[in-house]
Amino acid sequence: MEYDGAPFAGWQRQADQPSVQGAIEAALSKLERREHTIAAAGRTDAGVHARGQVAQCDMERDWDPFRLSEALNYHLKPAPVAIRACARVDDEWHARFSAVERRYLFRVLERRAPATLEKRQVWRVMAPLDLEAMRAGAAHLVGHHDFTTFRSTMCQAKSPLKTMDEIRVERVETWAGPEYQFHLRARSFLHNQVRSIVGTLERVGAGAWAPDDVKTALEARARSACGPVCPPDGLYLVGVGYPRDPFA
Amino acid sequence: MEYDGAPFAGWQRQADQPSVQGAIEAALSKLERREHTIAAAGRTDAGVHARGQVAQCDMERDWDPFRLSEALNYHLKPAPVAIRACARVDDEWHARFSAVERRYLFRVLERRAPATLEKRQVWRVMAPLDLEAMRAGAAHLVGHHDFTTFRSTMCQAKSPLKTMDEIRVERVETWAGPEYQFHLRARSFLHNQVRSIVGTLERVGAGAWAPDDVKTALEARARSACGPVCPPDGLYLVGVGYPRDPFA
Repeated sequence: MEYDGAPFAGWQRQADQPSVQGAIEAALSKLERREHTIAAAGRTDAGVHARGQVAQCDMERDWDPFRLSEALNYHLKPAPVAIRACARVDDEWHARFSAVERRYLFRVLERRAPATLEKRQVWRVMAPLDLEAMRAGAAHLVGHHDFTTFRSTMCQAKSPLKTMDEIRVERVETWAGPEYQFHLRARSFLHNQVRSIVGTLERVGAGAWAPDDVKTALEARARSACGPVCPPDGLYLVGVGYPRDPFA
Repeated sequence: MEYDGAPFAGWQRQADQPSVQGAIEAALSKLERREHTIAAAGRTDAGVHARGQVAQCDMERDWDPFRLSEALNYHLKPAPVAIRACARVDDEWHARFSAVERRYLFRVLERRAPATLEKRQVWRVMAPLDLEAMRAGAAHLVGHHDFTTFRSTMCQAKSPLKTMDEIRVERVETWAGPEYQFHLRARSFLHNQVRSIVGTLERVGAGAWAPDDVKTALEARARSACGPVCPPDGLYLVGVGYPRDPFA
């Protein structure tokens, strides 16, 4: 699934606010008239986008996967949510618990003028960023660490220990200006982990932090040692990995 | 200047609807309290975007160009319009009449699922398109021709004769799916000319028209011979050429 997170209060269904989960469950109710509860691989926050979210639903009728995606897209209109593909899975398969990898992208646009066409889809920063410094800072975070510094105090995960498999930082020249793309890959992430990391690395890029300050912050194992958490606008869940790709 | 055309009734100021010209003139009025009238190189229609529009304004105070762009961007918020750069020009210079080249881009996304993150920024088509057929069809339109077939009946240009310098069609694989990018370049364009051409070429790509049918349509010099005019969503004014680039 892909969605523009801007108009939503996040993935998770809410009683009084629009959510992606709520939009899809409402579309499912048009196909089979009952309550539906779907589970997603990553419960994205308000304003966070997806290019490759994965969720599961239980259907009573034996839907052809292609026809199910077409029917859902029809009923999802005009919400900016699209089903790119559906696939049949075994009963044991779970979109969240079977996932072994999540990939996120964070886009930072460096320029003076506000973003227009990509207004809620990038984080615009005005200070020039130092790519090599951000890469050096990021290197301290790759591997198995206690990420207490880089998770929200609201995070419900039992342990702050996570393994970051990759943080790749690229600079791409776009028509809108230089864009820094942060690619993060891990089995799973803590709440606000990507935004805490990118917000901290931006401080390194701007020269306010030295790359080694990221190591100090990590080792402090204290939320107060984190840099500013960046806004959700530039964050995308781009893909989820499973031992066997159900869409292959 | 760049702007997201989706929320606007077009470039041109309107009494009762939001326009890009109106938004910028209102920002100018915050800087010098009087009526302002600005002129643009290309008067884009409702829903059409710009990555490189150019307009001129007459100021009483001797503004530093950088500070003028910063002040305008401040007052333009939250409208999705941004001033990328300002430059001083001679009194004889005119954004529209001094221009010797306009460059447009039209983006077509080919896939079943509706667009989400780029919802009003691409034209989504469902049929697979044949790139070489569209290129062959486009070749008939390059050069000096009577474009009566490819202009709106509302077009106010005195003559339908125009020289199309380039129509380049590229297929780009994007995260959202295959995207066809139509790059058109000419000294000037007729009203709805790009959308009439792309709408016709899409018919060629889908196999409903043969590439040579574009030649027949052109030679008919009749609006009724045109293919369907495509929506404004995928259209961008990407740049304007002047004998001497004022921003260089």
